[in-house]
Amino acid sequence: MTQIKSNVNVEQQAIEAKKAAKKLLILSEEDKNEALNHLADVLEREFETILKANEKDLENGREKGFSQAFMDRLSLSQERIKDFSNGLREVSELNDPTGDVISDWTLENGLQVQKVTVPLGVIGMIYEARPNVTVDATGLALKSGNAIILKGGSSAINSNQAIVDVIHQGLEETKIPKEAVQFIASTDREATKQLFTMKEHVDVLIPRGGGKLIKAVVENATVPVLETGVGNCHIYVDKEADVEKAINIMVNAKTDRPAVCNAAETLIVHKDWLDENIDALNKAFQENGIQVHGDEHAISVIPNAVPAAHEDWANEYLSTDIAVKTVEDLTDAIAHIETYGTKHSEAIVTENQENAQTFLNLVDAAAIYHNASTRFTDGGALGFGAEIGISTQKLHARGPMGLPALTTIKFLMKGTGQIR
Amino acid sequence: MTQIKSNVNVEQQAIEAKKAAKKLLILSEEDKNEALNHLADVLEREFETILKANEKDLENGREKGFSQAFMDRLSLSQERIKDFSNGLREVSELNDPTGDVISDWTLENGLQVQKVTVPLGVIGMIYEARPNVTVDATGLALKSGNAIILKGGSSAINSNQAIVDVIHQGLEETKIPKEAVQFIASTDREATKQLFTMKEHVDVLIPRGGGKLIKAVVENATVPVLETGVGNCHIYVDKEADVEKAINIMVNAKTDRPAVCNAAETLIVHKDWLDENIDALNKAFQENGIQVHGDEHAISVIPNAVPAAHEDWANEYLSTDIAVKTVEDLTDAIAHIETYGTKHSEAIVTENQENAQTFLNLVDAAAIYHNASTRFTDGGALGFGAEIGISTQKLHARGPMGLPALTTIKFLMKGTGQIR
Repeated sequence: MTQIKSNVNVEQQAIEAKKAAKKLLILSEEDKNEALNHLADVLEREFETILKANEKDLENGREKGFSQAFMDRLSLSQERIKDFSNGLREVSELNDPTGDVISDWTLENGLQVQKVTVPLGVIGMIYEARPNVTVDATGLALKSGNAIILKGGSSAINSNQAIVDVIHQGLEETKIPKEAVQFIASTDREATKQLFTMKEHVDVLIPRGGGKLIKAVVENATVPVLETGVGNCHIYVDKEADVEKAINIMVNAKTDRPAVCNAAETLIVHKDWLDENIDALNKAFQENGIQVHGDEHAISVIPNAVPAAHEDWANEYLSTDIAVKTVEDLTDAIAHIETYGTKHSEAIVTENQENAQTFLNLVDAAAIYHNASTRFTDGGALGFGAEIGISTQKLHARGPMGLPALTTIKFLMKGTGQIR
Repeated sequence: MTQIKSNVNVEQQAIEAKKAAKKLLILSEEDKNEALNHLADVLEREFETILKANEKDLENGREKGFSQAFMDRLSLSQERIKDFSNGLREVSELNDPTGDVISDWTLENGLQVQKVTVPLGVIGMIYEARPNVTVDATGLALKSGNAIILKGGSSAINSNQAIVDVIHQGLEETKIPKEAVQFIASTDREATKQLFTMKEHVDVLIPRGGGKLIKAVVENATVPVLETGVGNCHIYVDKEADVEKAINIMVNAKTDRPAVCNAAETLIVHKDWLDENIDALNKAFQENGIQVHGDEHAISVIPNAVPAAHEDWANEYLSTDIAVKTVEDLTDAIAHIETYGTKHSEAIVTENQENAQTFLNLVDAAAIYHNASTRFTDGGALGFGAEIGISTQKLHARGPMGLPALTTIKFLMKGTGQIR
């Protein structure tokens, strides 16, 4: 039976993680891959233990009256356990991102310089309800030679504890020390906050979840943060947009998976295009159950549209609602994105190559699209394999973060007594 | 005559910088290079204005009784102005780090993906006494297509204001908008603190200076920080170290320029090597005026050595003082570095290849040396051209940061209507 410990000593856990990270440095790629495959087997074998703990979380969730969407994310099944176990097997097949010599050269004095990739060290992962992140993040961290400290959402604490117990049990039979995976078994916010400033032991924090969680980490952390993914994404339909492309892209970006960060939240549309193609657009809104929050001109031509409040321009609806902003030209469109965008994914639909190029050059975001849906900003879709999150910051990594984002470099210098 | 404004509106300056950054995006490499060369000419031409303002800072410094070393760093001359002007000319000759296609591929559905380098946007540079940083940082920022907000030390405010006035005057005759270079003309700490949290307008902060300054930025900033260079660097002389190499490297790393961050602060020495080579080592200490702060064994064999206090192991002496720690083996040496090092530059001197490899693998620092002086951790020495600082953090950039550290990437996606 899974037990939640009432006392946690986060600093002690971080120290253990740091020690374990040192041990990971001397393991071979094969050692790490064997361990990941073994973990996958053990997680599948122990599915009943995990589901029993998950049932406890689901019960608590029902008592607290969590939404159906939330309960969905929280809920595990044998199938889902198989999915994340297969995820570990897939990660084992990706290239090891460490030990690559990125560049090497020899100075005139004979000193040999190598710039090589190495693990970051200890990753602090702070996330919300979904227990599969516990497994996904652990797999990516271990494959890239990092130790990980997991702090999942309180609502999933029993599921996460059970998963980590199984992982620890599995690691005993591998070369990876079990201390490389630390779980903060506490619902105490103070325990999390300790992580934020433990610069000596923790190399990077990765918050994954809603805007509030990410903001709390960014504002309180002295440990460097990899800021992930709030996405207020725009589709700009230019004057010379192809009608079919524009409508397909808008509908796809809005409705394919409305709850994800690369979904579109605002349609910015050139006034002339809007007036010319209003019937086709209205048909698309109606057929796809899209509720429009429009500016003055938009609500005058779109039936059932409600007036957009100021918040609508900044909102991540996470539903099939969309804001519609009418503009006079490309410059207005870019200015609107500049004001309200979250630097995640932005798209222009146009047959005018010059306007497309201006949009690609001037818009400041991780991913910028010409004539395609914003839904492709995703490690899987771009062929990165698994991703640990989508970075919306500019330092270190930007956009979908695969294994290389979990590495840093060091310069190795080999000499024969060189001095300056 | 240079005038210091009494009121500053940092937010307004940041907004102007952001706007200017947009304009920089459409300039060609040639436009930027012409501007840098023109600035170099104007700075040389206006040397008297700059020296007059510098005299004011020097007077204030003398009144406040600043140290000779400090006054040296603060002091400008026609020669020094020529040096930093030539620095701008050299930066103009470096490759433009933006617009590089790092990788590109096409998805099965035909969507073309390009990962390209782009400027960061707006850089907040926070530094101490040396007025040449005003010019160096401006040159690197503009060449990489970034706007810059400069906040120099109060003691150099007149010199910096004069330099920026000349830069603004020079930029009027170039394609770079003068708003791309903002100077916070205030000695008010609150003005600086505003910069720390202006995430909407500032993309990165680069603090350059002492440990206190850097700590203040890291602890108070929500804007991402590129942490630079406190260097508590170690030379580890292993049991099988060549005597001549060991002594040359220790003397060079300690005495070549004791005030810089890549200078050595502690000699860690294998007990057997120490006992065997004590005469040669003592001779080197004596001839080079090196004052030893030693552990128990070290002070028992080194004449005039004083006992090391706990602080000595963590101290950046910035002088020809050195701490000497005796160890029994490589593991002890690595553990000492792990405890007291600042992840900057660390060296092992040994003829034992296996120990060298272990040291290179296990020590966690930006630059790790085998049989060479730590003094090579420097953009110039490694052939990077000018550097904006030496990163001691792991995210984004590590070690000497040249122009590429002032860029980020974006993914550009060109489609024909692709949806998911």
